[in-house]
Amino acid sequence: MAGDSILLAAVSLLSACQQGFFAKMVGSSRMKHKIMPPAVNGPPEFERTFRAQQNCVEFYPVFLVALWTAGLFLSQELASLLGFFYIFARHRYFFGYAESAKGRIPGFYMSLIALFCLLVMAIAGITNGVLDKYLDINMLKKIRRMF
Amino acid sequence: MAGDSILLAAVSLLSACQQGFFAKMVGSSRMKHKIMPPAVNGPPEFERTFRAQQNCVEFYPVFLVALWTAGLFLSQELASLLGFFYIFARHRYFFGYAESAKGRIPGFYMSLIALFCLLVMAIAGITNGVLDKYLDINMLKKIRRMF
Amino acid sequence: MAGDSILLAAVSLLSACQQGFFAKMVGSSRMKHKIMPPAVNGPPEFERTFRAQQNCVEFYPVFLVALWTAGLFLSQELASLLGFFYIFARHRYFFGYAESAKGRIPGFYMSLIALFCLLVMAIAGITNGVLDKYLDINMLKKIRRMF
Repeated sequence: MAGDSILLAAVSLLSACQQGFFAKMVGSSRMKHKIMPPAVNGPPEFERTFRAQQNCVEFYPVFLVALWTAGLFLSQELASLLGFFYIFARHRYFFGYAESAKGRIPGFYMSLIALFCLLVMAIAGITNGVLDKYLDINMLKKIRRMF
Repeated sequence: MAGDSILLAAVSLLSACQQGFFAKMVGSSRMKHKIMPPAVNGPPEFERTFRAQQNCVEFYPVFLVALWTAGLFLSQELASLLGFFYIFARHRYFFGYAESAKGRIPGFYMSLIALFCLLVMAIAGITNGVLDKYLDINMLKKIRRMF
Repeated sequence: MAGDSILLAAVSLLSACQQGFFAKMVGSSRMKHKIMPPAVNGPPEFERTFRAQQNCVEFYPVFLVALWTAGLFLSQELASLLGFFYIFARHRYFFGYAESAKGRIPGFYMSLIALFCLLVMAIAGITNGVLDKYLDINMLKKIRRMF
């Protein structure tokens, strides 16, 4: 399995590092505004940074599930590319949000587009897999044969 | 691997869509009560919806780990069924909680039952796997042979 | 696959049980201080317990990704050992934090060390895997042959 999913694993690892980086940024923002744990309220700049990270945390497992199902059941290469785009979108979202509440919007919509594409790919891949396993119909192979 | 875990992947994907849906419901609740990010405080209805989603987020990776270990090491079919029941329980929990604080209770206990069964299955499957690998004792096969 | 990742699965399952346990502790703290959901504010002891759990939740998917990529692409045994150490560190962190804000520090740094080692292992394993797959260079085998 390890060899067939190396790109998915690489993208997952990159995104995990990004999550760690976001957590670090919240820690730095705590220091800067002298907000001692367990407090999570403070000046707007800190609250925006904190909420930006929280939103990334909320979406992270959803992203991983979509990435891996899309990659394993449809196309590893395309899923990894979309995963990479998602990480980039989350980067824009986080730093946009930290600057202003409005600044979160472009990155957020980009990340939703990436996630939506991954989910559509995953649904297609899983549907194909179920049809193949239980009804012996492999749509994917048929489509590939057409080209 | 892809073929042996298609049901687990399908249930995971469904639960990922559900998590996305809950996040969307919180967004709609923000709009309705005009609560601009990064604020997370507001009228009780919004706070309940928000906490309902947060609780689902907290349990989501635990659910995924339990689902996959139970499915890969014991029974994919049974684990997927329990996973499906968990998704249903979380649906009831979320909408019950959004309505009233008491409304969260039935769905929450249902989800705990599903999670508990998955964890018991996973522990049994992993124990069997460890015994099999390191001591060459496969309890599962012995039990199956008895019937 | 199931046989090659049994230790990783066992560590993941243990950590999932730990996450469930932390969630239960927050529930008990709610009861003790009579804080009815959806409220998340209350006496400092409750807020510390709640934030301790939230921090564990934030890091949990990052930990899982690091554990599995390090384990599948470099060494299952070493990754599982580090994963076990991470769980122990999170245990110290949680109970230290629940007692006092300062008490969170030793466990937190221990967990960061474990996570950092897992990430370094994962990066090494993935880099090796990519070089092996796309350039046909397997550093890992070469290093092993040297001994």
